[in-house]
Amino acid sequence: MELTFRDNVRPSDRDHVRRIVAASGFFTAAEIDVAVELVDERFAKGSPSGYEFVFAEQEGRVIGYACYGEIACTVASYDLYWIAVEPGLRRRGLGRQLMQLVESRIAQRGGRKVYAETSSRPLYDATREFYLRCGYRESARFPDFYAVGDAKVVYEKTLTRGC
Amino acid sequence: MELTFRDNVRPSDRDHVRRIVAASGFFTAAEIDVAVELVDERFAKGSPSGYEFVFAEQEGRVIGYACYGEIACTVASYDLYWIAVEPGLRRRGLGRQLMQLVESRIAQRGGRKVYAETSSRPLYDATREFYLRCGYRESARFPDFYAVGDAKVVYEKTLTRGC
Repeated sequence: MELTFRDNVRPSDRDHVRRIVAASGFFTAAEIDVAVELVDERFAKGSPSGYEFVFAEQEGRVIGYACYGEIACTVASYDLYWIAVEPGLRRRGLGRQLMQLVESRIAQRGGRKVYAETSSRPLYDATREFYLRCGYRESARFPDFYAVGDAKVVYEKTLTRGC
Repeated sequence: MELTFRDNVRPSDRDHVRRIVAASGFFTAAEIDVAVELVDERFAKGSPSGYEFVFAEQEGRVIGYACYGEIACTVASYDLYWIAVEPGLRRRGLGRQLMQLVESRIAQRGGRKVYAETSSRPLYDATREFYLRCGYRESARFPDFYAVGDAKVVYEKTLTRGC
């Protein structure tokens, strides 16, 4: 498949993000709204919003994206807020490519740490394995964070020069 | 000293928050701006902003405050974003009173977990001791989070009924 990647955000990305995040089956309605709000924030405020995006397109169709940004009041730490790929197109390394692109963008900006968080629920087993495969380590676990029995797991990666 | 506490936010609180947070000596210019932005957000959007406040007043003067809010996409987890007391009025249990008030408000809303974060730097030794005295436990530590050598330390407390 021929893939292209872009950083700029377009008004239509609102719908692409909603479609991809909703189709993933991993997120609640409230979480989907948050994903779309970040696109709106970026579109309204530009770079000062603190949200950066990478979109993956195949023949003009957005099939995956990632959203990241510098963590306020830190020197070089970044959060990976979202990474999602269209369900039918998983297991082809697209998530990995998006991740590598995000990390290289962060490294270019002088970033040193990347954090990503997800849930301890079995639904997110593949997500947690994905972070580990991408070289992240589990750096914290907060029991009962999302709900009773649903912990927040935080992953962390230290970027090296030229990463 | 006769203390009163209030939850409602007034336009003048912007300046009170800036004064108290700046005078504390604990926060950078960027962090002070964030503290004031949360007041603005609350004033502009009301409760949907997600930011709740408690102000402590003595003879009409705001001498301390706390800001907290439910964490998006969680069932009953809250962040304590800010807690600060005028420097000349510390060591009188005011921080503790603010904390207890915040925790009782959170418990009234059905909250179960409270999280607070601070830095590992020696400047924040008293802050970390304060959380421990208030019954919080250190639940995570992220090395080099704020900057190289400056870890983020996360404290957590599980509220019990009637707390």
